[in-house]
Amino acid sequence: MAKDALPSAEGLERLVAALRVLPGVGPKSAQRMAYHLLQRDRAGADQLAMSLQHALRTVRHCAKCNNFTEDEICALCNSSRRDGSMLCVVETPADLAMVEQTLSFSGMYFVLMGRLSPLDGVGPRDIGLDRLLARATEGEVQEVILATNFTNEGEATAHYIAEMLRSRGVRVSRIARGVPLGGELEYVDAGTLSQALTERRAL
Amino acid sequence: MAKDALPSAEGLERLVAALRVLPGVGPKSAQRMAYHLLQRDRAGADQLAMSLQHALRTVRHCAKCNNFTEDEICALCNSSRRDGSMLCVVETPADLAMVEQTLSFSGMYFVLMGRLSPLDGVGPRDIGLDRLLARATEGEVQEVILATNFTNEGEATAHYIAEMLRSRGVRVSRIARGVPLGGELEYVDAGTLSQALTERRAL
Repeated sequence: MAKDALPSAEGLERLVAALRVLPGVGPKSAQRMAYHLLQRDRAGADQLAMSLQHALRTVRHCAKCNNFTEDEICALCNSSRRDGSMLCVVETPADLAMVEQTLSFSGMYFVLMGRLSPLDGVGPRDIGLDRLLARATEGEVQEVILATNFTNEGEATAHYIAEMLRSRGVRVSRIARGVPLGGELEYVDAGTLSQALTERRAL
Repeated sequence: MAKDALPSAEGLERLVAALRVLPGVGPKSAQRMAYHLLQRDRAGADQLAMSLQHALRTVRHCAKCNNFTEDEICALCNSSRRDGSMLCVVETPADLAMVEQTLSFSGMYFVLMGRLSPLDGVGPRDIGLDRLLARATEGEVQEVILATNFTNEGEATAHYIAEMLRSRGVRVSRIARGVPLGGELEYVDAGTLSQALTERRAL
């Protein structure tokens, strides 16, 4: 049978190709998603299309913290209850939400929306470090807390920002590494345990 | 910090919720997808929205085989090179494509677009068995080959269809089970090997 004998639906093929823009979605998943939407959830597919267009129209970045918002300045940055002397730097809005969930930080944020990754072509400007520098040195900020991930790229990003800010006389700190709460030494990886030993605290 | 102090972007939240219609996408993945689209690939997101709407507008089911198509009757069903006396029943368009790839079947298809699954509320009508029955008994079809999956649901579906068609005097067959090509007995699961023994062929 020639390939051209296969039933073709050009709209279906275009949808499968378009679904590949989603992170972590390969050809098989994209096909499965397209079948599911067209066969079982056309209302959901329509809703998804409208939500995409709505978000593209309305969602932008906060001029102060760089987080997603629909306003010029986001609600958190506008809040009078936050302490403007502390600036916590995180990689993503999800990280910001995690820090907020701890209820133990009342300062402001700067969201990098990524991390330094030279191999992927992500440099200092791509994660807004020029804007972070301006923000950290404009006067109100007393301390910048680096809360990037403890991955290689997150660590390199923290190191780069620390160097950049310290050379301008800004006080910089890094959130603590160590054995997690409830962690059993037997099941903690050697790297974490080694760090926990090196960065032990006097009691 | 009160929850309401969190920066909110309603359009972002709506997009995250809408992405949950995709099969296999939970809250974390949906959030990651939304961030990725809004931060790194707005052109791709726009393309996805348009492809969804285009597919919803143009893609429908072939009146003969039930596969996705943009026409009343799909190209395969319209082809004069196919043998109308053989009807192969598959669960999905992907399964149809796999059978086509073997180049060893030149008959027609019926795509169930699913399988019987009482627990999920999928009954005979939901997978078009009324239309399959009409198709199989309209005269031209000599044999119906059941090529549903060898899963519990696929087997139950094949069993149900076989009963339905046999009672109307239609010849029904099932694709063979057994040790796969290149399969080593040592690594084949016991169920498959047991089936291969039971369904052994005289040489």
